[in-house]
Amino acid sequence: MPDDPPFFISSPQNPRIKQLIKLRDRSEREESGLFLIEGYRELLRAADANHPLQTLFICPKLFLGENEQNLISRIKERGAQVWTCSETIFRKISYRDRPDGLLGIALQKHSNLLDLGKHLQNVPSPFLVVAEAIEKPGNLGTILRSSDAVGIDALIVCDRCTDIHNPNVVRASVGTLFTVPVIEADGEETLQWLKQHHIAVVAATPSASCEFTDVDLTGPVAIAVGTEQLGLSERWMKQADIQVRIPMRGVADSLNVAMATTLLLYETLRQRSTKRVS
Amino acid sequence: MPDDPPFFISSPQNPRIKQLIKLRDRSEREESGLFLIEGYRELLRAADANHPLQTLFICPKLFLGENEQNLISRIKERGAQVWTCSETIFRKISYRDRPDGLLGIALQKHSNLLDLGKHLQNVPSPFLVVAEAIEKPGNLGTILRSSDAVGIDALIVCDRCTDIHNPNVVRASVGTLFTVPVIEADGEETLQWLKQHHIAVVAATPSASCEFTDVDLTGPVAIAVGTEQLGLSERWMKQADIQVRIPMRGVADSLNVAMATTLLLYETLRQRSTKRVS
Repeated sequence: MPDDPPFFISSPQNPRIKQLIKLRDRSEREESGLFLIEGYRELLRAADANHPLQTLFICPKLFLGENEQNLISRIKERGAQVWTCSETIFRKISYRDRPDGLLGIALQKHSNLLDLGKHLQNVPSPFLVVAEAIEKPGNLGTILRSSDAVGIDALIVCDRCTDIHNPNVVRASVGTLFTVPVIEADGEETLQWLKQHHIAVVAATPSASCEFTDVDLTGPVAIAVGTEQLGLSERWMKQADIQVRIPMRGVADSLNVAMATTLLLYETLRQRSTKRVS
Repeated sequence: MPDDPPFFISSPQNPRIKQLIKLRDRSEREESGLFLIEGYRELLRAADANHPLQTLFICPKLFLGENEQNLISRIKERGAQVWTCSETIFRKISYRDRPDGLLGIALQKHSNLLDLGKHLQNVPSPFLVVAEAIEKPGNLGTILRSSDAVGIDALIVCDRCTDIHNPNVVRASVGTLFTVPVIEADGEETLQWLKQHHIAVVAATPSASCEFTDVDLTGPVAIAVGTEQLGLSERWMKQADIQVRIPMRGVADSLNVAMATTLLLYETLRQRSTKRVS
Protein backbone atom coordinates (compact mmCIF):
# COMPACT_ATOMS: atom_id res chain seq x y z
CA MET A 1 0.00 0.00 0.00
CA PRO A 2 1.18 3.50 -0.72
CA ASP A 3 1.34 4.52 2.92
CA ASP A 4 3.60 1.71 4.12
CA PRO A 5 6.14 3.26 6.48
CA PRO A 6 9.19 2.87 4.21
CA PHE A 7 7.34 4.82 1.53
CA PHE A 8 6.53 7.82 3.66
CA ILE A 9 8.40 11.11 3.28
CA SER A 10 8.38 13.84 5.90
CA SER A 11 11.87 15.31 5.50
CA PRO A 12 12.63 18.01 2.93
CA GLN A 13 16.16 16.60 2.84
CA ASN A 14 14.91 13.38 1.27
CA PRO A 15 16.89 12.92 -1.98
CA ARG A 16 13.72 12.09 -3.93
CA ILE A 17 12.25 15.45 -2.96
CA LYS A 18 15.43 17.21 -4.03
CA GLN A 19 15.44 15.44 -7.40
CA LEU A 20 11.79 16.31 -7.93
CA ILE A 21 12.32 20.01 -7.27
CA LYS A 22 15.29 20.05 -9.65
CA LEU A 23 12.96 18.90 -12.44
CA ARG A 24 11.44 22.37 -12.48
CA ASP A 25 14.60 23.36 -14.37
CA ARG A 26 14.79 22.67 -18.06
CA SER A 27 18.44 21.63 -17.95
CA GLU A 28 17.66 18.95 -15.39
CA ARG A 29 14.69 17.74 -17.40
CA GLU A 30 16.80 17.48 -20.54
CA GLU A 31 19.63 15.68 -18.80
CA SER A 32 17.40 13.18 -17.02
CA GLY A 33 14.73 12.69 -19.70
CA LEU A 34 12.14 13.05 -16.94
CA PHE A 35 9.42 15.64 -16.23
CA LEU A 36 6.66 16.47 -13.76
CA ILE A 37 2.94 15.81 -14.09
CA GLU A 38 0.86 17.38 -11.34
CA GLY A 39 -2.85 17.04 -10.70
CA TYR A 40 -5.54 14.36 -10.88
CA ARG A 41 -6.88 15.32 -14.28
CA GLU A 42 -3.44 15.54 -15.85
CA LEU A 43 -2.26 12.22 -14.35
CA LEU A 44 -5.51 10.52 -15.38
CA ARG A 45 -5.01 11.63 -18.99
CA ALA A 46 -1.39 10.46 -18.87
CA ALA A 47 -2.52 7.06 -17.52
CA ASP A 48 -5.28 6.78 -20.14
CA ALA A 49 -2.65 7.49 -22.82
CA ASN A 50 -0.32 4.83 -21.33
CA HIS A 51 2.32 7.45 -20.62
CA PRO A 52 5.01 5.79 -18.45
CA LEU A 53 5.45 7.11 -14.87
CA GLN A 54 8.53 6.52 -12.79
CA THR A 55 7.38 7.79 -9.39
CA LEU A 56 4.16 9.12 -7.89
CA PHE A 57 4.05 11.36 -4.81
CA ILE A 58 0.74 11.55 -3.00
CA CYS A 59 -0.77 13.36 -0.03
CA PRO A 60 -4.21 11.87 0.74
CA LYS A 61 -5.12 14.80 3.02
CA LEU A 62 -5.19 17.06 -0.04
CA PHE A 63 -7.30 14.81 -2.30
CA LEU A 64 -10.32 16.64 -3.69
CA GLY A 65 -12.32 13.71 -5.09
CA GLU A 66 -13.03 10.05 -4.48
CA ASN A 67 -11.34 8.35 -7.40
CA GLU A 68 -7.74 9.03 -6.44
CA GLN A 69 -7.12 5.51 -5.03
CA ASN A 70 -8.27 3.95 -8.28
CA LEU A 71 -5.86 6.10 -10.30
CA ILE A 72 -3.00 5.43 -7.85
CA SER A 73 -3.57 1.67 -8.17
CA ARG A 74 -3.49 1.88 -11.96
CA ILE A 75 -0.25 3.85 -11.89
CA LYS A 76 1.28 1.47 -9.33
CA GLU A 77 0.32 -1.59 -11.36
CA ARG A 78 2.30 -0.22 -14.29
CA GLY A 79 5.44 -0.18 -12.17
CA ALA A 80 5.66 3.32 -10.65
CA GLN A 81 6.85 3.69 -7.06
CA VAL A 82 4.32 5.48 -4.88
CA TRP A 83 5.48 7.70 -2.00
CA THR A 84 3.19 9.30 0.54
CA CYS A 85 4.23 12.77 1.70
CA SER A 86 3.35 14.85 4.71
CA GLU A 87 1.18 17.85 3.87
CA THR A 88 4.10 20.23 4.52
CA ILE A 89 6.31 18.35 2.09
CA PHE A 90 3.61 18.11 -0.55
CA ARG A 91 2.90 21.82 -0.44
CA LYS A 92 6.62 22.36 -0.88
CA ILE A 93 6.90 20.14 -3.97
CA SER A 94 3.67 21.34 -5.59
CA TYR A 95 3.83 24.22 -8.04
CA ARG A 96 0.14 24.99 -7.64
CA ASP A 97 -1.68 27.34 -5.29
CA ARG A 98 -4.20 24.64 -4.50
CA PRO A 99 -2.45 21.28 -4.78
CA ASP A 100 -4.70 18.22 -5.08
CA GLY A 101 -2.26 15.74 -3.56
CA LEU A 102 -0.93 14.03 -6.71
CA LEU A 103 2.39 14.71 -8.41
CA GLY A 104 4.24 12.31 -10.67
CA ILE A 105 7.65 12.02 -12.30
CA ALA A 106 7.24 10.72 -15.84
CA LEU A 107 9.49 9.65 -18.69
CA GLN A 108 9.66 12.05 -21.64
CA LYS A 109 8.54 10.86 -25.05
CA HIS A 110 9.77 12.49 -28.26
CA SER A 111 8.48 12.12 -31.81
CA ASN A 112 9.89 13.44 -35.09
CA LEU A 113 8.78 13.95 -38.69
CA LEU A 114 9.39 10.28 -39.53
CA ASP A 115 6.91 9.31 -36.81
CA LEU A 116 4.48 11.88 -38.20
CA GLY A 117 4.73 10.35 -41.67
CA LYS A 118 3.73 6.95 -40.30
CA HIS A 119 0.99 8.46 -38.15
CA LEU A 120 -0.60 10.20 -41.17
CA GLN A 121 -0.38 7.23 -43.55
CA ASN A 122 -4.11 6.66 -43.66
CA VAL A 123 -5.24 10.23 -43.06
CA PRO A 124 -6.75 11.57 -46.32
CA SER A 125 -6.70 15.28 -45.42
CA PRO A 126 -4.31 16.03 -42.54
CA PHE A 127 -5.13 18.85 -40.13
CA LEU A 128 -1.91 20.03 -38.46
CA VAL A 129 -0.69 22.93 -36.35
CA VAL A 130 2.85 24.30 -36.49
CA ALA A 131 3.96 26.32 -33.43
CA GLU A 132 7.18 28.19 -34.13
CA ALA A 133 9.28 29.26 -31.15
CA ILE A 134 6.42 29.93 -28.70
CA GLU A 135 7.91 31.49 -25.56
CA LYS A 136 5.29 31.14 -22.86
CA PRO A 137 4.50 27.67 -21.57
CA GLY A 138 0.94 28.77 -20.81
CA ASN A 139 0.38 29.66 -24.45
CA LEU A 140 1.77 26.35 -25.72
CA GLY A 141 -0.40 24.48 -23.22
CA THR A 142 -3.49 26.44 -24.27
CA ILE A 143 -2.74 25.74 -27.95
CA LEU A 144 -2.58 22.03 -27.05
CA ARG A 145 -5.93 22.27 -25.27
CA SER A 146 -7.60 23.86 -28.30
CA SER A 147 -5.82 21.40 -30.61
CA ASP A 148 -7.30 18.51 -28.66
CA ALA A 149 -10.72 20.16 -28.77
CA VAL A 150 -10.86 20.30 -32.56
CA GLY A 151 -9.15 16.94 -33.02
CA ILE A 152 -6.08 17.90 -35.06
CA ASP A 153 -3.84 15.12 -36.31
CA ALA A 154 -0.63 16.54 -34.79
CA LEU A 155 1.08 19.62 -33.38
CA ILE A 156 4.56 20.28 -34.77
CA VAL A 157 6.73 22.31 -32.38
CA CYS A 158 9.47 23.99 -34.42
CA ASP A 159 12.65 25.64 -33.19
CA ARG A 160 11.23 25.23 -29.77
CA CYS A 161 11.66 27.99 -27.28
CA THR A 162 9.44 26.58 -24.61
CA ASP A 163 10.23 23.04 -23.52
CA ILE A 164 7.09 20.96 -24.16
CA HIS A 165 7.77 19.23 -20.83
CA ASN A 166 7.65 22.45 -18.82
CA PRO A 167 5.24 21.95 -15.86
CA ASN A 168 3.18 24.93 -17.03
CA VAL A 169 2.68 23.38 -20.47
CA VAL A 170 1.31 20.25 -18.78
CA ARG A 171 -0.91 22.40 -16.55
CA ALA A 172 -2.28 24.78 -19.20
CA SER A 173 -2.87 21.80 -21.50
CA VAL A 174 -4.89 20.10 -18.71
CA GLY A 175 -3.21 16.88 -19.75
CA THR A 176 -3.94 17.13 -23.48
CA LEU A 177 -0.15 16.99 -23.95
CA PHE A 178 -0.73 13.24 -23.66
CA THR A 179 -3.55 13.01 -26.18
CA VAL A 180 -2.43 15.32 -29.00
CA PRO A 181 0.46 13.86 -31.04
CA VAL A 182 3.36 16.31 -30.60
CA ILE A 183 6.23 16.35 -33.10
CA GLU A 184 9.49 18.23 -32.47
CA ALA A 185 11.34 19.34 -35.57
CA ASP A 186 13.60 21.90 -37.18
CA GLY A 187 11.70 24.70 -38.95
CA GLU A 188 13.34 24.32 -42.37
CA GLU A 189 12.90 20.55 -42.37
CA THR A 190 9.26 20.93 -41.41
CA LEU A 191 8.63 23.34 -44.29
CA GLN A 192 10.20 20.91 -46.75
CA TRP A 193 8.27 18.02 -45.28
CA LEU A 194 4.95 19.87 -45.59
CA LYS A 195 5.69 20.80 -49.23
CA GLN A 196 6.58 17.18 -50.05
CA HIS A 197 3.36 15.99 -48.50
CA HIS A 198 1.24 18.63 -50.28
CA ILE A 199 0.00 20.12 -47.03
CA ALA A 200 -0.84 23.83 -47.37
CA VAL A 201 0.79 26.17 -44.84
CA VAL A 202 -1.74 28.68 -43.49
CA ALA A 203 -0.30 31.82 -41.92
CA ALA A 204 -2.14 34.68 -40.25
CA THR A 205 -0.83 38.19 -40.94
CA PRO A 206 -2.46 41.63 -40.69
CA SER A 207 -1.42 42.35 -44.29
CA ALA A 208 -3.33 39.46 -45.86
CA SER A 209 -6.18 40.41 -48.17
CA CYS A 210 -8.55 37.57 -47.17
CA GLU A 211 -10.18 37.13 -43.80
CA PHE A 212 -9.69 33.71 -42.20
CA THR A 213 -13.37 32.88 -42.61
CA ASP A 214 -13.21 33.48 -46.38
CA VAL A 215 -10.54 30.98 -47.47
CA ASP A 216 -10.93 27.26 -48.08
CA LEU A 217 -9.45 25.30 -45.16
CA THR A 218 -11.00 21.95 -45.99
CA GLY A 219 -7.94 20.44 -47.70
CA PRO A 220 -4.72 19.21 -46.07
CA VAL A 221 -3.58 22.17 -43.93
CA ALA A 222 -0.96 23.16 -41.39
CA ILE A 223 -1.99 26.22 -39.37
CA ALA A 224 1.31 27.97 -38.60
CA VAL A 225 1.70 30.38 -35.65
CA GLY A 226 4.74 32.18 -34.32
CA THR A 227 6.19 33.93 -31.28
CA GLU A 228 4.15 36.16 -28.98
CA GLN A 229 6.24 39.23 -29.80
CA LEU A 230 6.95 38.93 -33.50
CA GLY A 231 4.56 36.39 -34.96
CA LEU A 232 5.77 33.95 -37.61
CA SER A 233 9.28 34.35 -38.98
CA GLU A 234 9.93 35.60 -42.52
CA ARG A 235 10.75 32.07 -43.63
CA TRP A 236 7.27 30.79 -42.80
CA MET A 237 5.50 33.92 -44.02
CA LYS A 238 7.18 33.77 -47.41
CA GLN A 239 6.46 30.09 -47.94
CA ALA A 240 2.90 30.15 -46.69
CA ASP A 241 0.43 28.83 -49.26
CA ILE A 242 -2.54 30.66 -47.75
CA GLN A 243 -2.30 33.99 -45.95
CA VAL A 244 -5.24 35.06 -43.86
CA ARG A 245 -6.19 38.06 -41.77
CA ILE A 246 -8.00 38.00 -38.45
CA PRO A 247 -10.15 41.15 -38.33
CA MET A 248 -9.01 43.69 -35.73
CA ARG A 249 -11.63 46.35 -35.04
CA GLY A 250 -10.11 47.92 -31.93
CA VAL A 251 -6.94 49.77 -30.95
CA ALA A 252 -4.76 46.71 -30.45
CA ASP A 253 -3.01 45.33 -33.51
CA SER A 254 -2.92 41.66 -32.62
CA LEU A 255 -4.49 38.91 -30.55
CA ASN A 256 -2.78 36.68 -28.04
CA VAL A 257 -1.19 33.82 -30.03
CA ALA A 258 -3.29 31.13 -28.35
CA MET A 259 -6.47 33.09 -29.20
CA ALA A 260 -5.45 33.49 -32.84
CA THR A 261 -4.62 29.78 -33.08
CA THR A 262 -7.92 28.76 -31.52
CA LEU A 263 -9.86 30.93 -33.99
CA LEU A 264 -8.05 29.38 -36.96
CA LEU A 265 -8.53 25.87 -35.60
CA TYR A 266 -12.27 26.27 -35.04
CA GLU A 267 -12.78 27.92 -38.42
CA THR A 268 -11.05 24.92 -40.01
CA LEU A 269 -13.27 22.58 -38.01
CA ARG A 270 -16.41 24.55 -38.95
CA GLN A 271 -15.59 24.37 -42.67
CA ARG A 272 -14.75 20.68 -42.52
CA SER A 273 -17.94 19.82 -40.61
CA THR A 274 -20.08 21.80 -43.05
CA LYS A 275 -18.41 20.09 -45.99
CA ARG A 276 -19.00 16.67 -44.48
CA VAL A 277 -22.70 17.35 -43.91
CA SER A 278 -23.48 18.85 -47.32
CA MET B 1 12.77 67.73 -16.72
CA PRO B 2 12.04 64.31 -15.24
CA ASP B 3 15.60 63.74 -14.11
CA ASP B 4 15.97 66.87 -12.00
CA PRO B 5 17.78 65.86 -8.82
CA PRO B 6 14.83 66.27 -6.44
CA PHE B 7 12.86 63.88 -8.59
CA PHE B 8 15.41 61.09 -8.51
CA ILE B 9 14.91 57.97 -6.40
CA SER B 10 17.72 55.61 -5.49
CA SER B 11 16.62 54.42 -2.06
CA PRO B 12 14.23 51.50 -1.59
CA GLN B 13 13.14 53.19 1.64
CA ASN B 14 11.60 56.06 -0.32
CA PRO B 15 7.93 56.28 0.78
CA ARG B 16 6.75 56.58 -2.84
CA ILE B 17 8.37 53.24 -3.65
CA LYS B 18 6.76 51.67 -0.61
CA GLN B 19 3.32 52.98 -1.60
CA LEU B 20 3.79 51.72 -5.14
CA ILE B 21 4.68 48.21 -4.03
CA LYS B 22 1.67 48.12 -1.72
CA LEU B 23 -0.58 48.69 -4.76
CA ARG B 24 0.10 45.12 -5.84
CA ASP B 25 -2.40 44.18 -3.10
CA ARG B 26 -6.07 44.41 -3.86
CA SER B 27 -6.96 45.80 -0.42
CA GLU B 28 -4.55 48.70 -0.89
CA ARG B 29 -5.91 49.38 -4.38
CA GLU B 30 -9.47 49.41 -3.10
CA GLU B 31 -8.66 51.68 -0.19
CA SER B 32 -6.65 54.18 -2.22
CA GLY B 33 -8.62 54.10 -5.47
CA LEU B 34 -5.29 53.82 -7.29
CA PHE B 35 -3.70 51.12 -9.43
CA LEU B 36 -0.56 50.36 -11.43
CA ILE B 37 -0.03 50.62 -15.19
CA GLU B 38 3.28 49.22 -16.36
CA GLY B 39 4.77 49.32 -19.84
CA TYR B 40 5.01 51.68 -22.79
CA ARG B 41 2.15 50.19 -24.77
CA GLU B 42 -0.18 50.09 -21.78
CA LEU B 43 0.64 53.66 -20.70
CA LEU B 44 0.27 54.91 -24.27
CA ARG B 45 -3.22 53.42 -24.50
CA ALA B 46 -4.11 54.91 -21.11
CA ALA B 47 -2.88 58.34 -22.30
CA ASP B 48 -4.77 58.02 -25.60
CA ALA B 49 -7.90 57.25 -23.61
CA ASN B 50 -7.30 60.25 -21.32
CA HIS B 51 -7.00 58.02 -18.30
CA PRO B 52 -5.72 60.16 -15.38
CA LEU B 53 -2.27 59.35 -13.98
CA GLN B 54 -1.06 60.48 -10.57
CA THR B 55 2.62 59.55 -10.74
CA LEU B 56 4.97 58.13 -13.35
CA PHE B 57 8.19 56.30 -12.46
CA ILE B 58 10.77 56.03 -15.21
CA CYS B 59 14.18 54.47 -15.78
CA PRO B 60 15.63 55.74 -19.09
CA LYS B 61 18.34 53.04 -19.07
CA LEU B 62 15.64 50.42 -19.58
CA PHE B 63 13.77 52.16 -22.42
CA LEU B 64 13.33 49.91 -25.46
CA GLY B 65 12.19 52.44 -28.05
CA GLU B 66 12.58 56.07 -29.05
CA ASN B 67 9.16 57.53 -28.28
CA GLU B 68 9.28 57.32 -24.52
CA GLN B 69 10.13 61.02 -24.00
CA ASN B 70 7.12 62.05 -26.03
CA LEU B 71 4.81 59.90 -23.93
CA ILE B 72 6.42 61.14 -20.69
CA SER B 73 5.85 64.76 -21.75
CA ARG B 74 2.20 64.06 -22.53
CA ILE B 75 1.67 62.42 -19.16
CA LYS B 76 3.51 65.24 -17.36
CA GLU B 77 1.46 67.92 -19.11
CA ARG B 78 -1.69 66.38 -17.74
CA GLY B 79 -0.38 66.89 -14.22
CA ALA B 80 1.37 63.65 -13.23
CA GLN B 81 4.58 63.85 -11.19
CA VAL B 82 7.48 62.13 -12.91
CA TRP B 83 10.19 60.41 -10.86
CA THR B 84 13.36 58.93 -12.30
CA CYS B 85 14.57 55.75 -10.61
CA SER B 86 17.90 53.98 -10.51
CA GLU B 87 17.92 50.70 -12.44
CA THR B 88 18.06 48.70 -9.20
CA ILE B 89 14.99 50.47 -7.85
CA PHE B 90 13.10 50.12 -11.12
CA ARG B 91 13.75 46.39 -11.31
CA LYS B 92 12.45 46.15 -7.76
CA ILE B 93 9.18 47.98 -8.48
CA SER B 94 8.54 46.33 -11.84
CA TYR B 95 6.43 43.16 -11.90
CA ARG B 96 7.78 42.11 -15.27
CA ASP B 97 10.71 39.90 -16.23
CA ARG B 98 11.83 42.45 -18.79
CA PRO B 99 10.83 45.92 -17.55
CA ASP B 100 10.77 48.68 -20.17
CA GLY B 101 11.39 51.56 -17.75
CA LEU B 102 7.86 52.96 -17.42
CA LEU B 103 5.48 52.37 -14.51
CA GLY B 104 2.61 54.64 -13.53
CA ILE B 105 0.19 55.03 -10.66
CA ALA B 106 -3.26 55.84 -12.03
CA LEU B 107 -6.67 56.73 -10.65
CA GLN B 108 -9.31 54.02 -10.89
CA LYS B 109 -12.46 54.67 -12.90
CA HIS B 110 -15.68 52.79 -12.27
CA SER B 111 -18.82 52.58 -14.39
CA ASN B 112 -22.19 51.00 -13.62
CA LEU B 113 -25.34 49.96 -15.47
CA LEU B 114 -26.66 53.54 -15.52
CA ASP B 115 -23.54 54.59 -17.39
CA LEU B 116 -24.03 51.67 -19.76
CA GLY B 117 -27.59 52.78 -20.50
CA LYS B 118 -26.37 56.21 -21.56
CA HIS B 119 -23.48 54.72 -23.53
CA LEU B 120 -25.83 52.47 -25.54
CA GLN B 121 -28.48 55.11 -26.25
CA ASN B 122 -27.72 55.33 -29.93
CA VAL B 123 -26.50 51.78 -30.45
CA PRO B 124 -29.15 49.92 -32.49
CA SER B 125 -27.93 46.37 -31.81
CA PRO B 126 -25.67 46.20 -28.75
CA PHE B 127 -22.87 43.64 -28.64
CA LEU B 128 -21.92 42.97 -25.01
CA VAL B 129 -19.90 40.48 -23.00
CA VAL B 130 -20.75 39.45 -19.44
CA ALA B 131 -17.89 37.94 -17.44
CA GLU B 132 -19.15 36.31 -14.26
CA ALA B 133 -16.68 35.82 -11.42
CA ILE B 134 -13.57 35.18 -13.53
CA GLU B 135 -10.76 34.15 -11.16
CA LYS B 136 -7.56 34.59 -13.12
CA PRO B 137 -6.43 38.12 -14.01
CA GLY B 138 -4.73 36.78 -17.14
CA ASN B 139 -8.03 35.40 -18.41
CA LEU B 140 -9.91 38.65 -17.76
CA GLY B 141 -7.14 40.60 -19.51
CA THR B 142 -7.22 38.25 -22.50
CA ILE B 143 -11.01 38.56 -22.71
CA LEU B 144 -10.54 42.36 -22.81
CA ARG B 145 -7.98 42.02 -25.60
CA SER B 146 -10.35 39.92 -27.71
CA SER B 147 -13.25 42.24 -26.82
CA ASP B 148 -11.29 45.19 -28.14
CA ALA B 149 -10.41 43.24 -31.28
CA VAL B 150 -14.03 42.61 -32.27
CA GLY B 151 -15.21 46.04 -31.13
CA ILE B 152 -17.82 45.12 -28.52
CA ASP B 153 -19.85 47.94 -26.96
CA ALA B 154 -19.03 47.00 -23.36
CA LEU B 155 -17.79 44.29 -21.01
CA ILE B 156 -19.91 43.79 -17.88
CA VAL B 157 -17.94 42.28 -15.00
CA CYS B 158 -20.40 40.63 -12.62
CA ASP B 159 -19.83 39.46 -9.06
CA ARG B 160 -16.23 40.14 -9.70
CA CYS B 161 -13.68 37.75 -8.36
CA THR B 162 -10.70 39.28 -10.07
CA ASP B 163 -10.19 42.99 -9.48
CA ILE B 164 -10.22 44.66 -12.90
CA HIS B 165 -7.35 46.86 -11.68
CA ASN B 166 -5.06 43.90 -10.94
CA PRO B 167 -1.68 44.53 -12.66
CA ASN B 168 -2.01 41.26 -14.54
CA VAL B 169 -5.35 42.33 -16.04
CA VAL B 170 -3.69 45.49 -17.33
CA ARG B 171 -0.80 43.45 -18.70
CA ALA B 172 -2.78 40.64 -20.34
CA SER B 173 -5.14 43.23 -21.82
CA VAL B 174 -2.13 45.07 -23.33
CA GLY B 175 -3.87 48.28 -22.32
CA THR B 176 -7.27 47.51 -23.87
CA LEU B 177 -8.65 47.93 -20.34
CA PHE B 178 -8.59 51.63 -21.26
CA THR B 179 -10.36 51.27 -24.60
CA VAL B 180 -13.12 48.75 -23.89
CA PRO B 181 -15.93 50.22 -21.75
CA VAL B 182 -15.98 48.12 -18.55
CA ILE B 183 -19.09 48.05 -16.35
CA GLU B 184 -19.10 46.57 -12.85
CA ALA B 185 -22.44 45.27 -11.64
CA ASP B 186 -24.27 42.75 -9.52
CA GLY B 187 -25.25 39.58 -11.43
CA GLU B 188 -28.98 39.66 -10.67
CA GLU B 189 -29.25 43.36 -11.55
CA THR B 190 -27.39 42.77 -14.79
CA LEU B 191 -29.78 39.98 -15.79
CA GLN B 192 -32.80 42.21 -15.12
CA TRP B 193 -31.19 45.08 -17.00
CA LEU B 194 -30.50 42.89 -20.05
CA LYS B 195 -34.10 41.59 -20.06
CA GLN B 196 -35.46 45.14 -19.81
CA HIS B 197 -33.31 46.21 -22.73
CA HIS B 198 -34.24 43.17 -24.84
CA ILE B 199 -30.66 42.02 -25.13
CA ALA B 200 -30.42 38.24 -25.57
CA VAL B 201 -28.15 36.39 -23.14
CA VAL B 202 -26.00 33.84 -24.97
CA ALA B 203 -24.52 31.06 -22.84
CA ALA B 204 -22.20 28.27 -23.88
CA THR B 205 -22.83 24.87 -22.36
CA PRO B 206 -21.86 21.34 -23.47
CA SER B 207 -25.52 20.27 -23.18
CA ALA B 208 -26.87 22.77 -25.74
CA SER B 209 -28.32 21.27 -28.91
CA CYS B 210 -27.04 23.98 -31.31
CA GLU B 211 -23.44 24.67 -32.18
CA PHE B 212 -22.35 28.29 -31.75
CA THR B 213 -21.93 28.72 -35.49
CA ASP B 214 -25.55 27.66 -36.14
CA VAL B 215 -27.48 30.26 -34.08
CA ASP B 216 -28.34 33.83 -35.06
CA LEU B 217 -26.06 36.25 -33.20
CA THR B 218 -26.81 39.32 -35.30
CA GLY B 219 -29.34 40.89 -32.91
CA PRO B 220 -28.65 42.59 -29.57
CA VAL B 221 -26.59 40.04 -27.63
CA ALA B 222 -24.68 39.61 -24.39
CA ILE B 223 -22.18 36.75 -24.56
CA ALA B 224 -22.05 35.42 -20.98
CA VAL B 225 -19.10 33.45 -19.65
CA GLY B 226 -18.34 32.13 -16.17
CA THR B 227 -15.62 30.90 -13.86
CA GLU B 228 -12.70 28.80 -15.03
CA GLN B 229 -13.70 25.84 -12.82
CA LEU B 230 -17.46 25.75 -13.02
CA GLY B 231 -18.55 27.88 -15.99
CA LEU B 232 -21.62 30.07 -15.72
CA SER B 233 -23.77 29.83 -12.59
CA GLU B 234 -27.20 28.20 -12.63
CA ARG B 235 -28.82 31.63 -12.52
CA TRP B 236 -27.31 32.66 -15.83
CA MET B 237 -27.74 29.27 -17.47
CA LYS B 238 -31.44 29.14 -16.65
CA GLN B 239 -32.12 32.65 -17.89
CA ALA B 240 -30.06 32.43 -21.05
CA ASP B 241 -32.07 33.19 -24.18
CA ILE B 242 -29.71 31.30 -26.48
CA GLN B 243 -27.72 28.26 -25.43
CA VAL B 244 -24.89 27.16 -27.66
CA ARG B 245 -22.36 24.36 -27.73
CA ILE B 246 -18.72 24.67 -28.73
CA PRO B 247 -17.78 21.37 -30.40
CA MET B 248 -15.32 19.30 -28.39
CA ARG B 249 -13.76 16.48 -30.42
CA GLY B 250 -10.97 15.48 -28.05
CA VAL B 251 -10.63 14.05 -24.55
CA ALA B 252 -10.98 17.36 -22.69
CA ASP B 253 -14.48 18.50 -21.88
CA SER B 254 -13.98 22.27 -22.05
CA LEU B 255 -11.85 25.06 -23.42
CA ASN B 256 -10.06 27.76 -21.45
CA VAL B 257 -12.64 30.48 -20.71
CA ALA B 258 -10.75 33.14 -22.69
CA MET B 259 -10.63 30.80 -25.74
CA ALA B 260 -14.34 30.05 -25.52
CA THR B 261 -15.13 33.77 -25.23
CA THR B 262 -12.91 34.65 -28.19
CA LEU B 263 -14.62 32.03 -30.36
CA LEU B 264 -18.08 33.35 -29.48
CA LEU B 265 -16.97 36.96 -30.07
CA TYR B 266 -15.48 36.27 -33.49
CA GLU B 267 -18.48 34.18 -34.56
CA THR B 268 -20.73 37.11 -33.63
CA LEU B 269 -18.50 39.47 -35.60
CA ARG B 270 -18.45 37.11 -38.60
CA GLN B 271 -22.23 36.90 -38.68
CA ARG B 272 -22.67 40.65 -38.27
CA SER B 273 -20.13 41.42 -41.02
CA THR B 274 -21.78 38.96 -43.41
CA LYS B 275 -25.19 40.45 -42.67
CA ARG B 276 -23.91 43.96 -43.32
CA VAL B 277 -22.39 42.95 -46.67
CA SER B 278 -25.33 40.95 -48.02
